[in-house]
Amino acid sequence: MQTELKAALAETATAVERTISHLLPSTEMAEAPLFEAMRYGCLNGGKRLRPFLVLHSASLFGVNADCALRVGAAVEFVHCYSLIHDDLPAMDDGELRRGRPTVHRQFDEATAILAGDGLLTFAFEVLADPETHEDPNVRCQLVTALAKASGGRGMVGGQMLDLIAEHETFDLGTTTRLQRMKTGELIAFSCEAGGILGKAAPAQRHALRAYAHDLGLAFQIVDDLLDVEGTQEETGKTVGRDAQAGKATFVSILGRERARAQAEMLSRQAAAHLEIFEGRADMLKAVAEFVVARRA
Amino acid sequence: MQTELKAALAETATAVERTISHLLPSTEMAEAPLFEAMRYGCLNGGKRLRPFLVLHSASLFGVNADCALRVGAAVEFVHCYSLIHDDLPAMDDGELRRGRPTVHRQFDEATAILAGDGLLTFAFEVLADPETHEDPNVRCQLVTALAKASGGRGMVGGQMLDLIAEHETFDLGTTTRLQRMKTGELIAFSCEAGGILGKAAPAQRHALRAYAHDLGLAFQIVDDLLDVEGTQEETGKTVGRDAQAGKATFVSILGRERARAQAEMLSRQAAAHLEIFEGRADMLKAVAEFVVARRA
Repeated sequence: MQTELKAALAETATAVERTISHLLPSTEMAEAPLFEAMRYGCLNGGKRLRPFLVLHSASLFGVNADCALRVGAAVEFVHCYSLIHDDLPAMDDGELRRGRPTVHRQFDEATAILAGDGLLTFAFEVLADPETHEDPNVRCQLVTALAKASGGRGMVGGQMLDLIAEHETFDLGTTTRLQRMKTGELIAFSCEAGGILGKAAPAQRHALRAYAHDLGLAFQIVDDLLDVEGTQEETGKTVGRDAQAGKATFVSILGRERARAQAEMLSRQAAAHLEIFEGRADMLKAVAEFVVARRA
Repeated sequence: MQTELKAALAETATAVERTISHLLPSTEMAEAPLFEAMRYGCLNGGKRLRPFLVLHSASLFGVNADCALRVGAAVEFVHCYSLIHDDLPAMDDGELRRGRPTVHRQFDEATAILAGDGLLTFAFEVLADPETHEDPNVRCQLVTALAKASGGRGMVGGQMLDLIAEHETFDLGTTTRLQRMKTGELIAFSCEAGGILGKAAPAQRHALRAYAHDLGLAFQIVDDLLDVEGTQEETGKTVGRDAQAGKATFVSILGRERARAQAEMLSRQAAAHLEIFEGRADMLKAVAEFVVARRA
């Protein structure tokens, strides 16, 4: 299954790349550097895990793949904007991202701020467009869910907690909440989006949400492990920054062994939530395995 | 009429203040500084011109005032986020805004970046909420229009042009395009929003759009004039920054006299577009006069 998953991830990555490039063309106008920075920040990179979750949760309900790809691109715009702003000197001051200079290093700080703002705004424009779904109620639900997942009570709130974590020591409860907000909510949206697009029944939406919740935490624990165990060559980004900043992470609180055991438990639990879909959710179950086995 | 307008502006400002405070409460959670910065950045300040335009364009069509106030608050979230990011050290490096320290001076840079991100995201959450309008089609149209007005082809694109203007000399055509994008599009959205909420006929929407177009340019020309003629005490912000940065503005291109004449012509032309609404648009006509007469 992991071989099939890798092929499917590669296929999705290609389709997402094409969709993003189509939605976000270059321009000849004087503001061209903005669009270059937006494209630089969200093309040529990443596992495209979130769009993959959108596509494969949507396929459970027979949703048109082009619609799901648009939603996948929108999630990726939000994910990439958050990386661009997170990498700014005033935030994490990242130099490398996916093996290339970060946006503010390749362009400049002001352009990076605006490119992030532009991508975030564009995500909502794409979701609200009738091409994403014929039913305006579905489109509004997508906008609402993405805004909640990425705003002050979601991802942006998690980034704020992450800043505070540099000078306060959080316990396991607050660290879990931080990570659920910072990365978990957007992963949860990606899985829920398929259910929204497919007008899924409440029990099905609940199963997807529970899966996403466990998957997101497992994902983050492994991210923390890779920050300690990984190399810059493997991960394509600067490693060891959490420890350097003295931040509480799952690894610093639980230790490496217990952290890995916890990630593996969450991965199995995530897959178990999908039993109601029977064989149709095998790809999503494989993602849960992949997330804890990855080296980048 | 200007006395009535001033009373109406003050009344709207109070209602907007209340709506924003209600929509965006403080929190006791660890991420509290984020919400404090978001509130600091959009409470206690400003003329609330954009919400006023939403309310009074909506009232032409008998739209419920609470719905219009929510849309007015959403526009203000976007306007205030743009000021917060524009004031950052990497952008305009503003120290004062509405007579108080800018958000990054009052909090810190990272918090200001996140507060801006949070406000932008929240604007879309508010628009997509069923409380804003019962018809999901109307809500989607609002999201689309706001995203277009504020994204890379709207406000954010205009901010990019503004950065480029620091080291390139734009002609009158590009300067006009810059200003239409940077401030005009959001003003245009504010006027269009009433038409969207009220399901206005195409001719009515067209009239509102034409009004907003001329109003926005007049507004910006006067902003440029105030940057040259105004004092920090009057405007509540640092003045003379455009000249210092060597930026082409309407004033540097046209000279003060022709710039003022142009603003006055645009103001009269803006009001003329509203003739189809007969007496019902008197308040919007008065705004066009107010915009060129203001000292802040």
